[in-house]
Amino acid sequence: MARVYNFSAGPACLPEAVLEEAANQLVEYQNEGMSVMEMSHRSKAFMAIIAETETLLRELMNIPANYKVLFLQGGASSQFAMVPLNLFNKSKKCDLVHTGAWTKKALQEAKRYGTVNVLASSEDKTFSYIPKLDKSAFSSDADYFYICSNNTIYGTKYNVLPETGNVPLVADMSSNILSEELDVSKFGIIFAGAQKNIGPAGLTIVIIREDLVGKAMDITPTMFDYKTHVEGESMFNTPPTYSIYIAKLVFEWLKELGGIKAIEEINKQKANILYDYLDESVLFKGTAAKEDRSLMNVPFVTGDEELDKKFIAAAEKEGLVTLKGHRSVGGMRASIYNAMPVEGVKKLVACMQKFEQENK
Amino acid sequence: MARVYNFSAGPACLPEAVLEEAANQLVEYQNEGMSVMEMSHRSKAFMAIIAETETLLRELMNIPANYKVLFLQGGASSQFAMVPLNLFNKSKKCDLVHTGAWTKKALQEAKRYGTVNVLASSEDKTFSYIPKLDKSAFSSDADYFYICSNNTIYGTKYNVLPETGNVPLVADMSSNILSEELDVSKFGIIFAGAQKNIGPAGLTIVIIREDLVGKAMDITPTMFDYKTHVEGESMFNTPPTYSIYIAKLVFEWLKELGGIKAIEEINKQKANILYDYLDESVLFKGTAAKEDRSLMNVPFVTGDEELDKKFIAAAEKEGLVTLKGHRSVGGMRASIYNAMPVEGVKKLVACMQKFEQENK
Repeated sequence: MARVYNFSAGPACLPEAVLEEAANQLVEYQNEGMSVMEMSHRSKAFMAIIAETETLLRELMNIPANYKVLFLQGGASSQFAMVPLNLFNKSKKCDLVHTGAWTKKALQEAKRYGTVNVLASSEDKTFSYIPKLDKSAFSSDADYFYICSNNTIYGTKYNVLPETGNVPLVADMSSNILSEELDVSKFGIIFAGAQKNIGPAGLTIVIIREDLVGKAMDITPTMFDYKTHVEGESMFNTPPTYSIYIAKLVFEWLKELGGIKAIEEINKQKANILYDYLDESVLFKGTAAKEDRSLMNVPFVTGDEELDKKFIAAAEKEGLVTLKGHRSVGGMRASIYNAMPVEGVKKLVACMQKFEQENK
Repeated sequence: MARVYNFSAGPACLPEAVLEEAANQLVEYQNEGMSVMEMSHRSKAFMAIIAETETLLRELMNIPANYKVLFLQGGASSQFAMVPLNLFNKSKKCDLVHTGAWTKKALQEAKRYGTVNVLASSEDKTFSYIPKLDKSAFSSDADYFYICSNNTIYGTKYNVLPETGNVPLVADMSSNILSEELDVSKFGIIFAGAQKNIGPAGLTIVIIREDLVGKAMDITPTMFDYKTHVEGESMFNTPPTYSIYIAKLVFEWLKELGGIKAIEEINKQKANILYDYLDESVLFKGTAAKEDRSLMNVPFVTGDEELDKKFIAAAEKEGLVTLKGHRSVGGMRASIYNAMPVEGVKKLVACMQKFEQENK
């Protein structure tokens, strides 16, 4: 069959041009006589790939010189432990804003190694909004302040970042990294699993301010100590080489497109097409609070489970796939990451309009 | 340029047929309309891929039903911590045979969480042999007994496994898993990074006896607890989906070839071609003790650094690449994993013969 529009929350769609280039170079990369998958991570060819990947990411995100970029494994789930194990080194206390399933996991893991102060939570309304924060409640002695910048399941994101002063802000940015312009210098650590806006699952990118490295708790496994990977330049052990190569192709694609400024415009355009329709539709309703709407994940419902199912099936017939919502929200979810073309969102809205007409 | 014969120690060569199939299916997998890289790990299509990968591995290695197969991330380096964190639960003591750089790392990490009794070491002769073991010295109350079954850098392997009785035998099998027939029931845990005999870097396979799961130390990060991944069926978090898919293709290739019995014959044939020549050569000498020679990694030297360099350059010109030895042994190393064709080894020996003729 022809390629579909894949609205998966992650692993998610990748730019077709990237996939085509990867396919062309899969058996033999450039003049190396071998696949990138077969290359020693210490080879000149691969060292050039990883260096270029880092350079591109630094350029795209305008990462200051006092931040290290790490290419790790283990996903955000490993970061849930690495963050407290590395940062709980003074008060062993952190502030956290609870906005969904992923902050819950981060909270549970951090609690095993120190004290987590849950500043605010949106659990009362199925995490459909980002809580307003009272700055006076922030712990000035916290070792870090933790947020999830975009909540994949609930379709919410921070439009205003908390001002944490000297307390390092740590953000799980798995589902909105590289989607809009960002001031990296406001963060202590940014981490992201690759499988939404970067590349294949199995690569985790960590951007960490230098002064936060080297103070891990004694019990920290060597592989969970950021210092290990900073000193090893992401080569302490064999990194996920092929995933890094795909990330490089994605970063090149993004740069050619005009960088983050350009993709942000496109992402806003895509999100507006969908939200505008949701706001006027009688049948479909967005579930996230308007002021906190994500550019990347758009959950919506009809309010009728049978009708939701019927719509998902109808959309699938038109090549619009993986639209089923997460069980905790129900209904549908359209994940419209960087690689989703505007055309895909237009087709989705057309399909929704047609369905609404037919199911008045 | 044409494809080369790549003697890299890892990441290493993959079967050309596997790479070609992967290239053909990279943009669109079967009738899914998307790449495997883009698939939700919870999708039917990917669930079928991971299930089939496990089935194939179980079949190839004849893995007993009371063993779990896990598809993890983080490499052997993560296992160096996971093994002690999960198994130090009674005496907090283990026996270890020290046979090289990788047992050294395992030893250093295990020592942080308990007592490591180094039973024997071959460090006195640059790890060029596997020490003879005195069974009466084994600790009957050890929580586990640790070996590295094949030492990539030094080209040694166990031809006789230690009889550890009730003490679980744990083996780092990264560089010889799937290379010869093996009785899995003799082990408590087998682990292996994928990048030598399985697939792309970034996937780690763990085969663990069920009764060893669920007794991790309290400080163990959730992602380092085997129980997390046993209960989550390797889906606690997003697994390295594309690497698992490539592993599946490699396992299919191996099965078609006739399984482990067949590849063992081929591996012995390849190793014999090279060792027979090394034994008769005046110029080149193998560095590992004859009775402990690896089927996978063959280090050899001329004894003259300049000549080594000259040979490596000469071989490269003939499309025989990544032959430089590890700095701790020097000279050359030919890694001849499952995917290295017999033809590659023949070509290497022909090149060595020619070089020896020209450099008498």
